[in-house]
Amino acid sequence: MTLPGGIGATEIDHVGIAVRDLEASVALYRTVLGAEPVHRETVPDQGVEEVLFRVGTSYVQLLAALGPDTPVGKFLERRGEGVHHVGYRVPDVAAALEALRAEGVPLVDEAPRPGSRGTTVAFAHPKGFAGVLVELVQEGQ
Amino acid sequence: MTLPGGIGATEIDHVGIAVRDLEASVALYRTVLGAEPVHRETVPDQGVEEVLFRVGTSYVQLLAALGPDTPVGKFLERRGEGVHHVGYRVPDVAAALEALRAEGVPLVDEAPRPGSRGTTVAFAHPKGFAGVLVELVQEGQ
Repeated sequence: MTLPGGIGATEIDHVGIAVRDLEASVALYRTVLGAEPVHRETVPDQGVEEVLFRVGTSYVQLLAALGPDTPVGKFLERRGEGVHHVGYRVPDVAAALEALRAEGVPLVDEAPRPGSRGTTVAFAHPKGFAGVLVELVQEGQ
Repeated sequence: MTLPGGIGATEIDHVGIAVRDLEASVALYRTVLGAEPVHRETVPDQGVEEVLFRVGTSYVQLLAALGPDTPVGKFLERRGEGVHHVGYRVPDVAAALEALRAEGVPLVDEAPRPGSRGTTVAFAHPKGFAGVLVELVQEGQ
C-alpha cells in the first residue's frame, strides 16, 4: 500500500560500497557476480572513482576515494570497507527532497545536483533512515 | 556481459538494516518510503525480528536483534545502526555456494538453510565481497 508523501522510490538504484583498492575489488566482484562491470567514472564533486556492476534492475557501485579527506576516504579510515550508502531510484529528486523536508528528515543536499552516468542526485542524512546514508537518484536530467 | 561462474544474481533481493528500535524504525521507513511494510517475521534461527518494505523488485529489511548475543545484537553494539548485509536473489543457492567455494571465497554457511518468507538462504563472508556480509536468497523452497 502506498501512502501520501515519501520519496516515491521505484527501485533500489544501487548499493554503494567503499573499497580501499578499486582494481582488486573490481576483480573480486567480477568473480563473485560472474559479470563484467558496465560503467566506470571519476566524480570529482563526490571525491570518488566508481565502478558499476549491473544486478537485475539495480547496480553494485564500488567506490574508491580520490583522497583521504574525501567523504569516502574518511569513511574508510573510520569504519573500513563496507556499505557506504544506499541509492533509491526516484522519478523526481526535487519532489523527493521536498517530501523529506516536509517530514523534518535531515538532508545532506538541500537541492539536486549532477551525479554519475548522467543522473541527478541528492543525499539525505542517515538520521532519517536508521543510520543509513541515502542517495536519491533520478535517471536522465 | 556474463562470465562463467559467479552467484548468478538476478536482483538485489534486499538491503538488511540493523536497528535498535524496530517500531520506531518501521515508523521512520513508513514515512520516508511512503509505503506500508509488506511482511513481518521472527526468525529465531538468525536471532532477529524483521520487517520488510517493498521497493520495486527489492526489499528494505529492518532487523531487530532478539538479544545482545545474536549476530545483529553484536553488530549494533560494535557498529551501531546501519546496513548489516546485502541480499542477492539467486535462482539456486546451492549452485551459488558451490561457485563461491570453487573460487575460494570464504563462506559463513556451508549449506543452504531456510530463511524468512519461505526462502532458502546462505551467508557468505564479507572477505569475498569487499567488507560486505552477503546473503544469497532463493525464493520458494
